[in-house]
Amino acid sequence: MPDHHAASNSAPGVKALLFDVFGTVVDWRGSLITELTAWAQARGVRGDWTALVDAWRAAYVPSMNEVRKHPERGFVNLDALHRASLERLVAEQGIAGMTAADLDHVTRGWHRLNPWPDSVSGLTRLKTRFVISPLSNGNVALLVNMAKHAGLPWDLVLCAEVFRHYKPDPETYLGAAGLLGLQPEEVMLCAAHNNDLAAAQACGLATCFVPRPTEYGPLQKRDFKAEGDWTLVVSDFDDLADRLSC
Amino acid sequence: MPDHHAASNSAPGVKALLFDVFGTVVDWRGSLITELTAWAQARGVRGDWTALVDAWRAAYVPSMNEVRKHPERGFVNLDALHRASLERLVAEQGIAGMTAADLDHVTRGWHRLNPWPDSVSGLTRLKTRFVISPLSNGNVALLVNMAKHAGLPWDLVLCAEVFRHYKPDPETYLGAAGLLGLQPEEVMLCAAHNNDLAAAQACGLATCFVPRPTEYGPLQKRDFKAEGDWTLVVSDFDDLADRLSC
Repeated sequence: MPDHHAASNSAPGVKALLFDVFGTVVDWRGSLITELTAWAQARGVRGDWTALVDAWRAAYVPSMNEVRKHPERGFVNLDALHRASLERLVAEQGIAGMTAADLDHVTRGWHRLNPWPDSVSGLTRLKTRFVISPLSNGNVALLVNMAKHAGLPWDLVLCAEVFRHYKPDPETYLGAAGLLGLQPEEVMLCAAHNNDLAAAQACGLATCFVPRPTEYGPLQKRDFKAEGDWTLVVSDFDDLADRLSC
Repeated sequence: MPDHHAASNSAPGVKALLFDVFGTVVDWRGSLITELTAWAQARGVRGDWTALVDAWRAAYVPSMNEVRKHPERGFVNLDALHRASLERLVAEQGIAGMTAADLDHVTRGWHRLNPWPDSVSGLTRLKTRFVISPLSNGNVALLVNMAKHAGLPWDLVLCAEVFRHYKPDPETYLGAAGLLGLQPEEVMLCAAHNNDLAAAQACGLATCFVPRPTEYGPLQKRDFKAEGDWTLVVSDFDDLADRLSC
């Protein structure tokens, strides 16, 4: 059994920390609802923006599954998937008056998400002793622009687009370890989602659960707590930095 | 004609700066000779380390050409090319007493190269207004470890290994622009090598020449000055930051 309460480094042998991003590092739901509401008011566009954001996120996994099911179409990055599902949802929800430029702008709202309060301080501390990188289904430009916006101090940016596979495909977890020149057990995935951690663990990575119980707002149905035998369970990124003696 | 002497931003429209690394950002020759000389003295191994380092670098382009000529063998990263050429050169130069672990350690000397005096200060300033990334033939682990060692504040790490093509193949320059979600002309390659800039320019990128006239020591035969119609010609990275109003 891993020791969840050691005073010093609780993940011996780990050299790099990978982070799920949407929900784990940034508050996508709160950020998008706030930005869209303000934008729509200024632009004079009417809609139920909370409903739109929740439906948009619900389209996320099915849209990646389509990419996985149709390799002959080639890899499609998340900006393109977000843009296509937004266009469909705007029509379905009867939101009128959005131009193509508006749809582009709103889609890029995913590049402007805000971090949870502990994300920047925790990552900044963790960077002093570990290589830190996202391992996200977001595309490179999205993650680079988000890092500039939110002040996320990544050492490098690894994501689905680099491996041309979406999580939870093993190519992402093993691909990240490979590019870092590390064995899977020298890399730890930190995520707020038990299913992401299970896929990483199956590839041999160390795992760290960070609860983000307000990620889905009133719609949150799971991931309130750790549901696997993870290497570490922490309360937030500052707690992770404490546990790793950073 | 580009204006090489404007007081404010001299590269309008450019959003990301890519940097050649070996020679442009770090002093590979001086770093390796110093490290190898100290290591060999402590280890009691005899050799002409300046000759070894110069021969090692001379093997660099031919070794990448072999990868380019044999796509059926798959992509081979620079750590593996460096390890193979080192093993051959040690035998050719009659250097005795190096174990496999020694060869691994010395090969990883390329992960521990030191920056030119202006590199960290210039990059730190440039990062405030631009996305900054290497675009190197080094592999991801090499560049990430080097950044930790030398304090290079990259936003992300792009390199040959990501595109599975070595520079000057167009897949590297165009692949970098593509992952950044930018048009080629929105990306500027900064390099101490005119041939690298010519290949980037042929792909539509903006270009910046930075002279590093001591890169090859007494063996330096070219790249003392700009030999193309580059977007910018600067004296060092601090000058580049001045020219781009950072």
